[in-house]
Amino acid sequence: MTLERSDIEAAAQRVGPHLRRTPVLRLPAGEAGGLGLDYPVALKLEALQVTGSFKPRGAFNRILAAATLPADREAGVIAASGGNHGVAVAHAARALGLRAEIFVPEATPEAKRALIEGHGARLVVGGRDYQAAFEACQARAAETGALLVHAYDQEEVVAGAGTLARELEAEAPDLTHVLVAVGGGGLLGGMLAWYAESGVEVIAVEPSNCPTLTCAMLAGKPMPAPVGGIAADSLGARRLGGIAFALAARHLSRGVVVADSAIAEAQRRLWHACRVVAEPGGATALAALISGAWTPPEGAQVGVVICGANADPGSAVAAWPAA
Amino acid sequence: MTLERSDIEAAAQRVGPHLRRTPVLRLPAGEAGGLGLDYPVALKLEALQVTGSFKPRGAFNRILAAATLPADREAGVIAASGGNHGVAVAHAARALGLRAEIFVPEATPEAKRALIEGHGARLVVGGRDYQAAFEACQARAAETGALLVHAYDQEEVVAGAGTLARELEAEAPDLTHVLVAVGGGGLLGGMLAWYAESGVEVIAVEPSNCPTLTCAMLAGKPMPAPVGGIAADSLGARRLGGIAFALAARHLSRGVVVADSAIAEAQRRLWHACRVVAEPGGATALAALISGAWTPPEGAQVGVVICGANADPGSAVAAWPAA
Repeated sequence: MTLERSDIEAAAQRVGPHLRRTPVLRLPAGEAGGLGLDYPVALKLEALQVTGSFKPRGAFNRILAAATLPADREAGVIAASGGNHGVAVAHAARALGLRAEIFVPEATPEAKRALIEGHGARLVVGGRDYQAAFEACQARAAETGALLVHAYDQEEVVAGAGTLARELEAEAPDLTHVLVAVGGGGLLGGMLAWYAESGVEVIAVEPSNCPTLTCAMLAGKPMPAPVGGIAADSLGARRLGGIAFALAARHLSRGVVVADSAIAEAQRRLWHACRVVAEPGGATALAALISGAWTPPEGAQVGVVICGANADPGSAVAAWPAA
Repeated sequence: MTLERSDIEAAAQRVGPHLRRTPVLRLPAGEAGGLGLDYPVALKLEALQVTGSFKPRGAFNRILAAATLPADREAGVIAASGGNHGVAVAHAARALGLRAEIFVPEATPEAKRALIEGHGARLVVGGRDYQAAFEACQARAAETGALLVHAYDQEEVVAGAGTLARELEAEAPDLTHVLVAVGGGGLLGGMLAWYAESGVEVIAVEPSNCPTLTCAMLAGKPMPAPVGGIAADSLGARRLGGIAFALAARHLSRGVVVADSAIAEAQRRLWHACRVVAEPGGATALAALISGAWTPPEGAQVGVVICGANADPGSAVAAWPAA
């Protein structure tokens, strides 16, 4: 498997009519008008995407690439998800007139469960973590014949996520580095596939409590990783996807790990400086800058993907107001 | 007094280095990806501006146009405000190395008071409403010689607000109608001055509980209006400004009044469909569409200014999640 720009171009054609072109917010260096960093950043506000995360890019692409068989229309689609992917699949299925069944682990927050059901999908809660929910989902798919839409490790899903990079390149062609959060690696894989030959360096950021990329890189293959902390419901895959791993092995510039406290601080900073709400996974890439875990080289033009906001907006912003 | 495009161009040169170019989010018709309206809209996300509202556009322009005299540096700047203008003046003063004193009415929420003090300004609370705070502010300005930065009725303040329209025209040249909230009328005046000869129709939207524009239009001049309801702290001027009135008399396409319940529904819709937080005044223009108080003619391309988000993000979104 090699994912090419042409796969992402094809995905963009499929998903374009169903999605928003999310805006880019450019911030200067410093406190006055900026995030308090001593260099400018460009935020890709993908949390303003349909369903509140980047996930429908992959979900629509997988379903539209596959759902040409009449049989699919009866069995519908099925997915396992910590939450955001499930919301996206439920939304895409409803938009395309298909049934959807979504398996979530016990840790999935009540709000995300309600969003999935609100989109008309059948919700099945079971299993301690994403991996357990995925196994239950696989068994059910074998029974029903529903189209399985993987949360991150399917070529069409990764290509769909890559449409974010394609959009960002068009909107911010000056970027030299792009930071992106990693859980299962669908978004990371899509970004790497698009930017592979471009000279733009992709920096992967993961929570220290969900270190799928670190575990994979240390072992030389995807390996089970701990799953925990504040971003577990969006970045808590048990292991990195094989597609993302293959792309990371060839194209990843740098992997960075951040503490939960840095993620929470990035959430607060986004609200107080920009009036942008992000869930923990959505603020994880920015946390690498806020915490100093990664510092851009001289002259870099830094982009950061804010990839999700499916959180209670009050709890996403601890202290309000702050100076 | 006539405010020309050239005044707004000059303002844009002054304020540009201090402000963000706020993004435009385009939404299709319908529920899937849209706001549930049966036509597309373009949201100008001005709530993502520095200080969380459009107010620093006018504040920076007023101060930068005036503060060339050495005396200004000692006495600093002074303003009366329901909140957002005060935050903006405090921010601008700090950015420019000036002292600031801000007078707010008793109704100003604790959060906005804290933001003003957080920006290093001296806060004075007094008076039942904005008008009372303004009178106290005027008296104090006469004592200290500080530069008074009016919340809406000064030419430089209106020209500064007009830079929003200049930006929007460049970003969304296809718009035929632009909806904007009105309180004292600074933003309305700036929008009208920019779009005056362009063929773009500006629609003013005000809460039924703060009907400054309606009262002015009925009387043929700015008249005292009731001040109340959920948007009073941002749109609760006691009367429309004279500059805005003169511009409205010549250029306003249409004025529309919305109920507080429509404003609250617009806030909810912005969060649930777009993950955008707005304060009541910031969602007021959109409320005209959500409530059907104004319906675009066939073929219109509609823009809406989301002009502020200085609200507790939890309380800005009543029920979470919703389908």
